[in-house]
Amino acid sequence: MKAQYQNSGLLIVISGPSGVGKGTVCKHLRKKMPQLVYSVSVTTRAPRKGEKDRVNYFFKTVQEFKQMIREGQLIEWAQYVGNYYGTPREFVERTLKDGHDVILEIDVQGALQVKKAYPNAVFIFLLPPTTDELRKRIEHRGTESQKVLNQRLQAAAKEYEFLDRYDYVVINDEVEQACERIQSIIVAEHLRADRIILVNQ
Amino acid sequence: MKAQYQNSGLLIVISGPSGVGKGTVCKHLRKKMPQLVYSVSVTTRAPRKGEKDRVNYFFKTVQEFKQMIREGQLIEWAQYVGNYYGTPREFVERTLKDGHDVILEIDVQGALQVKKAYPNAVFIFLLPPTTDELRKRIEHRGTESQKVLNQRLQAAAKEYEFLDRYDYVVINDEVEQACERIQSIIVAEHLRADRIILVNQ
Repeated sequence: MKAQYQNSGLLIVISGPSGVGKGTVCKHLRKKMPQLVYSVSVTTRAPRKGEKDRVNYFFKTVQEFKQMIREGQLIEWAQYVGNYYGTPREFVERTLKDGHDVILEIDVQGALQVKKAYPNAVFIFLLPPTTDELRKRIEHRGTESQKVLNQRLQAAAKEYEFLDRYDYVVINDEVEQACERIQSIIVAEHLRADRIILVNQ
Repeated sequence: MKAQYQNSGLLIVISGPSGVGKGTVCKHLRKKMPQLVYSVSVTTRAPRKGEKDRVNYFFKTVQEFKQMIREGQLIEWAQYVGNYYGTPREFVERTLKDGHDVILEIDVQGALQVKKAYPNAVFIFLLPPTTDELRKRIEHRGTESQKVLNQRLQAAAKEYEFLDRYDYVVINDEVEQACERIQSIIVAEHLRADRIILVNQ
């Protein structure tokens, strides 16, 4: 009898309110766990300073985006503060099959759609330590008007209601610690009893 | 709104066939994670060389042990290769309430009893990489007769059937790696969504 772990990759969804630091955490995690593959999202929003097409996002027109929806090319998509965001299906499924873990860094609306299609994915909710801290982070980013800031804070409050649909909650009080926590979650999920294979030899 | 993790401790059950290395792994884990509290088991078996009463086990007579069963003082107990083993209830519950994680290093029979009483405990099955390796480890220990060795191997084969009652499987190919895996499991379990508390402030 020989015991071994399954080869297929895990789909890991890192989600949470806008401004909580999903991007910063994922950037840091990328250095700590270079074996993880990040899905590149499709979006219709304008590139921020320094963002590159096909690296940070696939930047698309609204028309192109709607065509991808119609053709079933997106695992999930959402409209948020006037822009569309989505996750391309083919890349994700191919990468998982090849045995690599895939990270989706997406908003809460998107995560709930992924849960319907992939109930066995690992859902991590990134939470700010306090609401005040979230406000500070969005203000600090300085890319949003007061109106958009308030929209984002209201959206965040509503998103907390979906916490119980997630498997794990990581409080993002400090980036390094948040990444260590996510790393532990990923290691642990690979060890779940339903991923073990016993081979007679 | 402020987010925080629950204060109560986790009950962590490390189990698996006799000879897989539960003791060695737990000894190593004790150094890596000194904050964990280890339950001291009660047993009727004779002390092995170097083992101390109240440190490695509470060594009891069969009569004393049966009285503890009658008085409901044991979370679980089992008879194994002619000896009794059990876990004292009061110590475990007090320690969890005080916010410390408790490790139970017990055999598979015992773990299944704990699961009935504490379904939310974290169940980890320690597995040898191969059956041949398990045989080698038991032989290497050199404390068992050929007859007892065969009994242990037969018991192990039967115990694998209960793998699906466990949450996690850790293959003990190498002690340091097994401990890192258990460490990740403990960190991750503390981050489960049902352990988060949101406080309005």
